[in-house]
Amino acid sequence: MAKEKKLVEAITSMEEDFAQWYTDVVKKAELIDYSSVRGCTIFRPAGYAIWENIQKKLDEKFKETGVENVYMPMFIPESLLQKEADHVEGFAPEVAWVTQGGLDPLQEKLAVRPTSETLFCEHYSHVVQSYRDLPKVYNQWCSVVRWEKTTRPFLRTMEFLWQEGHTAHATAEEAQARTEQMLNVYADFCENVLAIPMIKGRKTDKEKFAGAEATYTIEALMHDGKALQSGTSHNFGDGFAKAFGIQYTDKNNKLQYAHQTSWGMTTRIIGAMIMVHGDNSGLVLPPRIAPTQIMIIPIMQKKEGVLEKAEELRAMLAKQFSVKVDDSDKNPGWKYSEQEMRGIPVRVEVGPKDIEAGKCVVVRRDTREKIEVPFAELETRMPEILDQMHNDMLERARKHRDAHTYVATNYGEFKDIAENKPGFIKAMWCGDEACENKIKDDLAVTSRCMPFEQEEVATTCVCCGKPAKKLVYWGKAY
Amino acid sequence: MAKEKKLVEAITSMEEDFAQWYTDVVKKAELIDYSSVRGCTIFRPAGYAIWENIQKKLDEKFKETGVENVYMPMFIPESLLQKEADHVEGFAPEVAWVTQGGLDPLQEKLAVRPTSETLFCEHYSHVVQSYRDLPKVYNQWCSVVRWEKTTRPFLRTMEFLWQEGHTAHATAEEAQARTEQMLNVYADFCENVLAIPMIKGRKTDKEKFAGAEATYTIEALMHDGKALQSGTSHNFGDGFAKAFGIQYTDKNNKLQYAHQTSWGMTTRIIGAMIMVHGDNSGLVLPPRIAPTQIMIIPIMQKKEGVLEKAEELRAMLAKQFSVKVDDSDKNPGWKYSEQEMRGIPVRVEVGPKDIEAGKCVVVRRDTREKIEVPFAELETRMPEILDQMHNDMLERARKHRDAHTYVATNYGEFKDIAENKPGFIKAMWCGDEACENKIKDDLAVTSRCMPFEQEEVATTCVCCGKPAKKLVYWGKAY
Repeated sequence: MAKEKKLVEAITSMEEDFAQWYTDVVKKAELIDYSSVRGCTIFRPAGYAIWENIQKKLDEKFKETGVENVYMPMFIPESLLQKEADHVEGFAPEVAWVTQGGLDPLQEKLAVRPTSETLFCEHYSHVVQSYRDLPKVYNQWCSVVRWEKTTRPFLRTMEFLWQEGHTAHATAEEAQARTEQMLNVYADFCENVLAIPMIKGRKTDKEKFAGAEATYTIEALMHDGKALQSGTSHNFGDGFAKAFGIQYTDKNNKLQYAHQTSWGMTTRIIGAMIMVHGDNSGLVLPPRIAPTQIMIIPIMQKKEGVLEKAEELRAMLAKQFSVKVDDSDKNPGWKYSEQEMRGIPVRVEVGPKDIEAGKCVVVRRDTREKIEVPFAELETRMPEILDQMHNDMLERARKHRDAHTYVATNYGEFKDIAENKPGFIKAMWCGDEACENKIKDDLAVTSRCMPFEQEEVATTCVCCGKPAKKLVYWGKAY
Repeated sequence: MAKEKKLVEAITSMEEDFAQWYTDVVKKAELIDYSSVRGCTIFRPAGYAIWENIQKKLDEKFKETGVENVYMPMFIPESLLQKEADHVEGFAPEVAWVTQGGLDPLQEKLAVRPTSETLFCEHYSHVVQSYRDLPKVYNQWCSVVRWEKTTRPFLRTMEFLWQEGHTAHATAEEAQARTEQMLNVYADFCENVLAIPMIKGRKTDKEKFAGAEATYTIEALMHDGKALQSGTSHNFGDGFAKAFGIQYTDKNNKLQYAHQTSWGMTTRIIGAMIMVHGDNSGLVLPPRIAPTQIMIIPIMQKKEGVLEKAEELRAMLAKQFSVKVDDSDKNPGWKYSEQEMRGIPVRVEVGPKDIEAGKCVVVRRDTREKIEVPFAELETRMPEILDQMHNDMLERARKHRDAHTYVATNYGEFKDIAENKPGFIKAMWCGDEACENKIKDDLAVTSRCMPFEQEEVATTCVCCGKPAKKLVYWGKAY
């Protein structure tokens, strides 16, 4: 076998410079490219295929819960965006405005949607009249634009891809149930498909969505100890319904306001996947989302029967998985490096000696464990190997998170952790925004969420010392 | 059975006013709603589900031919849009411009993409260096914006959904082959899935895409005798490659320009489906694209066993088809009207007498033919019924088109047909744009295409009488 060339020499190690490692990986794994449009990235085939798989799997889950997909215009007239006061205040500073159509200036400028609550609300005000018209459980897959000053691939870009669900319900209880249901859909998807464990909780009022009564979130911890908000679900109460006049007659013929929710997950979850699972050889894609799950690499492929065997294995595995054969004229070592850089979950090595022995070597991307598998067992062993890999990746991410979750009972401890130990900080909070502001100003640490699983790690607020109301997860965040 | 209420009374008949019939159908079948964004429509669940199915089936076909999906930014800086002269000249008058980001005016205004040749070309200039990097066969599903003065749902809207494929090849031959291949993918899809027969041909230079060397098109004839351009495929030669510097070193280490194509199909094909197959009871969806293919309507559903049987049939048919049971408290006649308005390809009627006789009644939406099918045969008969329906719909559309395709050998005949007989006009053309312009100015008729299947219906140009070069399909068009 030829000497293994190191494609990985091209990337910075994550211990040396995590941010540079990340940038190197997204480029070298060919997930994205830059364009001359400031702050917008191009999703290359390897990057977009991940998003396609996320869409497919998440969309299935949505539809199981009764979601229907729609498509709303990408523009929002200024007057429509202004209808709900908190909402416009939150979004106006980051809106891109269309002011010219063809050769003429517009009479009213149009926002390129930063989010579509206002359009869904306007539509619901048309189509909801009676309790029979409820609930409406709509979703759209699209891109949105937010005018950001500094951007990073997947994590923060001016335009990003997402889904936004928007629902209308007869009662407050039903809206609350839907808000929680979708948060659970997100959390389950992240754990069961992306192998990323999540902390579920509620945002503080300071951190909630512009116009929401309550925002719920799932928060993940990246390899470098920073938090990443990975999906949010908002309960709007009847605030938007009142602003937009979404009313229905109930069974007693009484006019009522609808109760609404919205919820979204974006392409930044791809950034989370990279930063939770990646290593110094590149991407490590969770097996259930990887566009190519198995790469078969023939050894001494010019020897008679090798490519034929590789193709035979491909056809066999293709019944259950997405499989490719790398029969390019590169040497096997180079092919290994490429497969590793691209994060393809397993490779199957097969050469003349293997064929003679009636087996191949399956190599896991995450652990690099080499597993000899007789050809006759490959079809049954492969699902086990990939499931084991998923479970191990999830478990490793959970252990990493738990090992980087600290408890602080006073401000000294809190400051020490924030400055020296990257990770989540569990600490009590009095409920006062002033404490959140102080912590943010002093330490660049924000409240990530009030977890559903509350504990009492102390009785007083970690910041001001007054009686504590809630346990909060704090952290530096992407 | 209760008296059949007529939901259809709500729509204008197509003989009375075809345009109003169309508008009524898209509203009453709940495909679209209007918003306060001028010229943009909302795709409601029933409308968007059709597009989702089109996406799914077309995307499969694309991928079989080696297409990879990507996603490009929705904005194009003015300077980038201007790089290819013909292209910008063609699109500038209908571009929406972003001139303000957040609170600040932009230094360079950004076009909301009307089409993305320029972005793909810029990207290709980054990633194509060697012949090994070719071909690039990329596609994206997205929306684009064109600032139109007058708009109609699906047919012409300021924002519309589409796919745009963009490819780069080593040779002119390969680019030409890809251009034709994708036109054939479109034509086959329209015939085999949407049951719409297409005329395949080449656009005249006057009608070709801004920046293309040659544009190929598929043209369909609507029920009212107007033509609808249903998909286009462009060969750019190396014009864009020269403007954007897309060069590769060939096997002899010589620097060459790439050859490029692009091709697109849009949501206007939904408009074509409506106008080819619809009738005075509403939509008629082709069975292979309908989001709900079968609606089971229980008769006397409160009688014991009826809903159970309906559910049993649903579960049986759901293995192969998308099936629903309408168990709402409306009467069966109303349910029939709704199913017809929504164009659901077949309904299955099942009541106590049917159950006793061990059969149900399958009613085709297109012909209203009632077919008694024993329960035991339903699973095998249903695919036959739906295939037959597809074939009949395609055949009917073909007959209608052929019956409304006329031949004109001189300008008097041409004028008479254009004014009195809605349909395609087959007539010879000298190749001079002046004749196209005269015909358009005089009769509001445009050249639809020079069909691949050329005939010589006369020897002289139908307009000027000079020697003819090509047979052209002419028509009034959407």
